[in-house]
Amino acid sequence: MPRKSEKYSVVGKRQPRLDGVLKATGRAEFTDDVILPGMLHGKIVRSPITYGKIRNIDTSRAEKLPGVKAVITHKDTGGLMSGPDKLLLCEHTVYHFGDEVAAVAAIDVDTATEAAGLIKIEYEPMKPLLSMEEATAEGAPVLHDFLTDNYADEVKMNFGDVDKAFAESDHVRIDEYAIQPTHSSFTEQHVVLADFSLPDRLTVWTPVQGSSIIKSTMAQRLGLSDSSVRIMNLNTGGAFCGRGADKPHHYLAAILSRKAGRPVKIRCTSEEEFVVYRGGGKYNFRIKTGVKKDGTLTALEAEMLHDCGAYMETQFIMLRFVGFNFQTLYKLPAYRYRGRLVYTNNPPYFFHHGAGLVAKRFALDSQLNLIAQDLKMDPVEFRLKNAVDKDYTTLCGFHYATCGLKECIKKASKKANWKKKYEKLPPYRGIGIGCGMLRSGGKGMYDHDTSAVFIKLEEDGKAFLFTGLPDMGQGSHTAMAIIAAETLGIQAEDIKVVAGDTDSTPFDVGAISQRGTFTTGNATINACLDARKQLAKTAAEKFGVKPSAIVFRDRKVYPKGKPEKAVSFEDIVSATLHSEEGRYVMGRGFYNPPTKGSDLITFEGNPSLAYSFGAQIAEVEVDPETGIVKLLRMTVAHDVGRAINPMAVEGQVYSGMGQTLTEECIMEDGLVMNPSLLDYKLPRAFEVPEIEHIIVETKDPYGPFGAKEVGQGPIQCTSQAIANAVSNAIGHPIKELPITPERVLRAIRERDKRSQ
Amino acid sequence: MPRKSEKYSVVGKRQPRLDGVLKATGRAEFTDDVILPGMLHGKIVRSPITYGKIRNIDTSRAEKLPGVKAVITHKDTGGLMSGPDKLLLCEHTVYHFGDEVAAVAAIDVDTATEAAGLIKIEYEPMKPLLSMEEATAEGAPVLHDFLTDNYADEVKMNFGDVDKAFAESDHVRIDEYAIQPTHSSFTEQHVVLADFSLPDRLTVWTPVQGSSIIKSTMAQRLGLSDSSVRIMNLNTGGAFCGRGADKPHHYLAAILSRKAGRPVKIRCTSEEEFVVYRGGGKYNFRIKTGVKKDGTLTALEAEMLHDCGAYMETQFIMLRFVGFNFQTLYKLPAYRYRGRLVYTNNPPYFFHHGAGLVAKRFALDSQLNLIAQDLKMDPVEFRLKNAVDKDYTTLCGFHYATCGLKECIKKASKKANWKKKYEKLPPYRGIGIGCGMLRSGGKGMYDHDTSAVFIKLEEDGKAFLFTGLPDMGQGSHTAMAIIAAETLGIQAEDIKVVAGDTDSTPFDVGAISQRGTFTTGNATINACLDARKQLAKTAAEKFGVKPSAIVFRDRKVYPKGKPEKAVSFEDIVSATLHSEEGRYVMGRGFYNPPTKGSDLITFEGNPSLAYSFGAQIAEVEVDPETGIVKLLRMTVAHDVGRAINPMAVEGQVYSGMGQTLTEECIMEDGLVMNPSLLDYKLPRAFEVPEIEHIIVETKDPYGPFGAKEVGQGPIQCTSQAIANAVSNAIGHPIKELPITPERVLRAIRERDKRSQ
Repeated sequence: MPRKSEKYSVVGKRQPRLDGVLKATGRAEFTDDVILPGMLHGKIVRSPITYGKIRNIDTSRAEKLPGVKAVITHKDTGGLMSGPDKLLLCEHTVYHFGDEVAAVAAIDVDTATEAAGLIKIEYEPMKPLLSMEEATAEGAPVLHDFLTDNYADEVKMNFGDVDKAFAESDHVRIDEYAIQPTHSSFTEQHVVLADFSLPDRLTVWTPVQGSSIIKSTMAQRLGLSDSSVRIMNLNTGGAFCGRGADKPHHYLAAILSRKAGRPVKIRCTSEEEFVVYRGGGKYNFRIKTGVKKDGTLTALEAEMLHDCGAYMETQFIMLRFVGFNFQTLYKLPAYRYRGRLVYTNNPPYFFHHGAGLVAKRFALDSQLNLIAQDLKMDPVEFRLKNAVDKDYTTLCGFHYATCGLKECIKKASKKANWKKKYEKLPPYRGIGIGCGMLRSGGKGMYDHDTSAVFIKLEEDGKAFLFTGLPDMGQGSHTAMAIIAAETLGIQAEDIKVVAGDTDSTPFDVGAISQRGTFTTGNATINACLDARKQLAKTAAEKFGVKPSAIVFRDRKVYPKGKPEKAVSFEDIVSATLHSEEGRYVMGRGFYNPPTKGSDLITFEGNPSLAYSFGAQIAEVEVDPETGIVKLLRMTVAHDVGRAINPMAVEGQVYSGMGQTLTEECIMEDGLVMNPSLLDYKLPRAFEVPEIEHIIVETKDPYGPFGAKEVGQGPIQCTSQAIANAVSNAIGHPIKELPITPERVLRAIRERDKRSQ
Repeated sequence: MPRKSEKYSVVGKRQPRLDGVLKATGRAEFTDDVILPGMLHGKIVRSPITYGKIRNIDTSRAEKLPGVKAVITHKDTGGLMSGPDKLLLCEHTVYHFGDEVAAVAAIDVDTATEAAGLIKIEYEPMKPLLSMEEATAEGAPVLHDFLTDNYADEVKMNFGDVDKAFAESDHVRIDEYAIQPTHSSFTEQHVVLADFSLPDRLTVWTPVQGSSIIKSTMAQRLGLSDSSVRIMNLNTGGAFCGRGADKPHHYLAAILSRKAGRPVKIRCTSEEEFVVYRGGGKYNFRIKTGVKKDGTLTALEAEMLHDCGAYMETQFIMLRFVGFNFQTLYKLPAYRYRGRLVYTNNPPYFFHHGAGLVAKRFALDSQLNLIAQDLKMDPVEFRLKNAVDKDYTTLCGFHYATCGLKECIKKASKKANWKKKYEKLPPYRGIGIGCGMLRSGGKGMYDHDTSAVFIKLEEDGKAFLFTGLPDMGQGSHTAMAIIAAETLGIQAEDIKVVAGDTDSTPFDVGAISQRGTFTTGNATINACLDARKQLAKTAAEKFGVKPSAIVFRDRKVYPKGKPEKAVSFEDIVSATLHSEEGRYVMGRGFYNPPTKGSDLITFEGNPSLAYSFGAQIAEVEVDPETGIVKLLRMTVAHDVGRAINPMAVEGQVYSGMGQTLTEECIMEDGLVMNPSLLDYKLPRAFEVPEIEHIIVETKDPYGPFGAKEVGQGPIQCTSQAIANAVSNAIGHPIKELPITPERVLRAIRERDKRSQ
């Protein structure tokens, strides 16, 4: 419930992270910091081959090693699945290099590692399917015997008369795009500590994006009641969509702990991290787009083929999300989509950055630049012509109560001096624009999208805010503190966030689908209003006015219009506790957007109440000798509804440079050939360009104080902006990510070949 | 709000402890189980003399010892006081053996111990005052220079015309009683782990009886805001009144941690435990009582002198409590009290078992037996004649809304076969009765007596109940679970209690003054009713009835009178969450008894809403050769209002045998000469007699489901029951506790001397 006055005292101010000192001094607690009495260390035995049969497993030598407390293989897991298509531990077949075959727990890491090496496993290697081409070729062997081919899943969407629309188009263009596998590169590697020493209680310390749902999933798979599982989700070193679900190491630690009767910690090595727990996989897109001569889009047909690796993980969600999101940024009268997931013997892929949407946005927004060129239109003008607006409803039913897309495009292009630069830069200098959007939470993943928040006020006027929303580094806890502080009329530093423990925190779907600020933010407001009402009662008695006439602001409480009568917030809280009634103030609130998720068959629906939009303009310089792209400047504009904390928004609105230019898991025989941060190149601080931030505030009617998402939204714009700038610099389209020097040189050669 | 029907489905059933498995398997977490990265171990340097001046402290050798990370003396504490009269670390003077002089923190216990030994302290011993007689003698040196004598505190109470009442009495008797110092003998020794590595956050793991208040006290003393201190009060191995306040080791660990920048754990040795952190001190009582010929009490004058040791600690509270409690059990028309605390150079004493009331009850109830003998009345009849009743108001204003004292006396004497045994037992066999009472929480210690409770319901129909009330072994968390389960209509095992962390739990004054079941119990009901209201809304919609017509019982929810329509509680919770509204159910509630604490000047007031009563009958056999008392049988009756958990009540209603017969800190030169559980004799399991339990239920109108306290109340009856039985067996009064063989033999010799 935003106040009528737009002048907030906390919202919109630049607020340094409340957990900044803890993190900077190394005092923030992460899973690996937890040491329990009697704790063991686990090690996972992984397949050293890419595909093959297991002939025999002999654990006897490992079991005899002094210090080893538990050894488990498939037979200890009760046939447990750790995904829709994956046995927790392989029984007869390994499907990818690194597939989990056995695990050990011992008194220290060295002993566990030694024991893992003592487990003798006989394999019979088989010829792996290493690419989508091989896996979908005529007569290819079928990997999983519950299917008749290697397509793991398929989705088709159709809105409008697409064929007719193409027939009536003035110009139709088809392009293909490829996006190579990436890695999430978390600051904190995958780690878990599980205590399952008693049969009806499982406590799991692990960094995840949403512990409530993972708790339920783990409980269900292990045959426990929901509340018997406790997830301790301490500080989390990055997630980027990659920590949204339970994973094999969670179960392995639990089962080892159950068998050993002691807590077990498993910490992935840097190599395991790269080989097994991977970000986005390979995507191929084929996009056919129709336009009128004046640039109006008429029809779109998109095909996606995605190599999901040996197991499907949660990629069936990505498959649908991509389908929806081809129609969300530009007005389209007709749209058709076919997306397919392909099983191969590559490691299973997982979400990375907006659940696959970065790849999709790169593909479509790159092609649109080519169409603009075909029509001799300025790409900015072309986008403005087709951009969605406030109150627009997409073909699939997404409705935009607010929309700052055009404002983002205009402001970014103005700030970037687009008109003075586009087609006027010297050779090998280029400028490009990319647009994107994303929802602010919503239904679809689950039938509700609830966040609940609890708040308690202490005698010193400070508040403890309980949330199941994790802060993975994006500053969400600071945002909740700001929202709570504004609602209660105190300061952000007066709020202590209690999080990271499913026993202690109320339900929250988690930090997925950019729902944190919007959904948990609204729940925070509701909880604070509940608490404020109780304080208003005390204040109203004191001032002899109605509770509704009490103002809470800047740590002061006073009757409306009479700030000179103010008493401190602390005094009101204390007076409430020390009243004869002894009222201790607690507030509870929840929020679940009153929307319906998209229909599973028709794909129609409006899952979210709020969608955010952005535009980015990249300026690059390409070295034609080496192919190296230097990113000179990024101008980023994002419609966040309302910037709860402009400092955090600025930190969020630019990212994606590495994913666009350098980050790639180089695959060979099903192995990542560059499994370390030495070989997998992330941008270093000095390589980051000058960044101009533009915050567009469309004041969403449903968002907390008007706020919408600023999670994975901004990165939806980056790759195509840079790719379009590189294309512009070299005069040839870029159709593959990342834009490595080799690919740039290849594009230059193709350009030269074509112009010969 | 108890239901109208008396048929509860959870309350009153025998419920094994919910934490039983955790405790029995060693999985329950205690402070000493907590290991933090970089944690140091602290050691306190204590005075090796009983009284004297500090001439010099040289810490240089300790500081140079490898592994030592911090050494602190008085100058590092900023003059911090750890009590009203105690410097945290002594500056110029040590006042008792074991007084804190310095402290060190090092990488392990051995290094810390070695470093402590390397601190060179020069003392100039002075002649100590070792007894109240010495301390109050004419011309005795004054220990503390803020006083002019050694009386630490004095309280006088007067109600009615006492002199006139004595003058009008038919018989007046004066007796003197002495109670020797005891020790709390916690299963878990004093231990603390403090992390003060950042200047504005202090986290303290330590077992205490109430963390909310200790948090505030520590914050205040250390100059921090309340919310900057977090007390982690994990499982607690016994308290018996002895863990009600912050103590020096808490501050020493904090200051060491601040200096070292790392967490510091201090765990007291068994010897330190006995020498420094002691239970009740020495009490001397002089009691003058007047009666009419028919046995009606007419007047009482009581004097108490208490050796509080070198510092006062919280004994000023005991001083007042004793004054109040001389007039609470038997009807009295006139009463006068003078209580004084005496400083000596003995170790400071602390509460032990009902804040000194055990000593007081022993004294008065023993004398009453002698008066009954003087009047040739049966002690049971004598007590029934004078016993307080329902609706009685004491001289100081305590009002009894319920009172089962007479019922307890009658039922216990009947069950114990009193009439057939009293004065009819063979020689050296004896039977005795003792009565007691205690309040169920209430005001006086603080201006409010608030407990707040928060509850959240999970999808599996389980509830998490948040309370600041600790369970020190008495089963209070199980009691809260029963109360919550009854209110919500589920089972006790469906409730998980979240406790032990001031950040996560709502305010609670704590487990002091027998307030847990009554006050936190009422808060629990209020929180559950708030949650139930939300569920009733869902159920009412489902059944098409009014929310008030919904019944919650036995994990079922149905419209009143139609149990055949029942759906499961779990389904209603789940339906509420999965409703389109997605309502996540949380309940909040608090309770603060609407009473006024006793006036500080007139001592009038009714601090509590409920008082519980009890009577116990002991049957003993005395060996006239050795003086050994064998306790044959205890018949214990306690008016608990309502037994929330009869199994736990039975566990609570009998204790005190050790304190009466064997437990004594033998003092010499200010030292405890028997500082170990080998020499300080607690009863062993096989020595515990046959116990008959009688639960009297007076159904208190204010208590949760009618319940009152069953904390330290029952032990208020034990000592005098046993003492009266021994007196009866040997034919001579027992006037000193504990009743060791030596004292019994002495009494027999006195008897023989008298009869010669």
